Amino acid sequence: MAEKVKHAIQDDYADDYSWCYGCGRLNEKGLRLRTGWDGDKTVTIYTPREEQMAIPGFVYGGVIASLVDCHGTGSAALALHRKNGHEPGDGEEPPRFVTGSLKVDYLKPTPQGKVLKAVGTVEEIHPKKWKVQTEVYVEDVCVVKGEVIAVVMPNTFTQS
Amino acid sequence: MAEKVKHAIQDDYADDYSWCYGCGRLNEKGLRLRTGWDGDKTVTIYTPREEQMAIPGFVYGGVIASLVDCHGTGSAALALHRKNGHEPGDGEEPPRFVTGSLKVDYLKPTPQGKVLKAVGTVEEIHPKKWKVQTEVYVEDVCVVKGEVIAVVMPNTFTQS
Repeated sequence: MAEKVKHAIQDDYADDYSWCYGCGRLNEKGLRLRTGWDGDKTVTIYTPREEQMAIPGFVYGGVIASLVDCHGTGSAALALHRKNGHEPGDGEEPPRFVTGSLKVDYLKPTPQGKVLKAVGTVEEIHPKKWKVQTEVYVEDVCVVKGEVIAVVMPNTFTQS
Repeated sequence: MAEKVKHAIQDDYADDYSWCYGCGRLNEKGLRLRTGWDGDKTVTIYTPREEQMAIPGFVYGGVIASLVDCHGTGSAALALHRKNGHEPGDGEEPPRFVTGSLKVDYLKPTPQGKVLKAVGTVEEIHPKKWKVQTEVYVEDVCVVKGEVIAVVMPNTFTQS
């Protein structure tokens, strides 16, 4: 399966906001997660590294939590960007979200060496606050369910 | 502040269970989180790496989620081990838990370059299922609250 996100929201984040360990395109040591639309669902695809294990043969839950996290903020950014009349790749800088809360339910052990596909459903609960429900699949099996409350990045985040 | 966990539960995990990217002492690329008792609370101390940022100056939430996650399973292992009459360092192999669910509330942006201290309260909800409430501090400020439901590692985890 060579499935790939073509236009990702993270590709269009401003350089200053592109250093995230989870999804920053400029962070060479990070996961470089990329999130795009698939119809009205959002999708992030990631294959964990060999060292990202819980025990040999199974993926570390903290990495799946990171996938759910950045998939969540990316999905919220996609949705608000679309609400504002834009799509990734159209040259307009998208909004940038941070995570207010993250919830992850581990339904099954996640085997290593497989592609993980996070599929999200986005709901606006306030103009600056969006809820993203995510299911993470290995092939056709849902191994994890997650929920992120994503909030438009407040000024406090860039003022110390 | 040179605070350090002296006897960590992860130091005593069997070799086969010591490869976790979050807390495995044998995983050279991992975070090598270590969790020990401080009275009846549990403690894990971690200083994020430079690349583990959300935006420059602030820690990546997925790494904090990983801290809450392994602190949770480690805390549950400490508690069940103590219930069984053992303490880290006494030569007895502790039980190993996996994460059933993980919840993280990000209360404030977490500045980089600081020591994070996760402090946990453990509650037995079933002999094989323990709840760990965690507060993550930067100096005296609580920046994150988390909750983990940790479950004794089932056989399905080691059978593929």
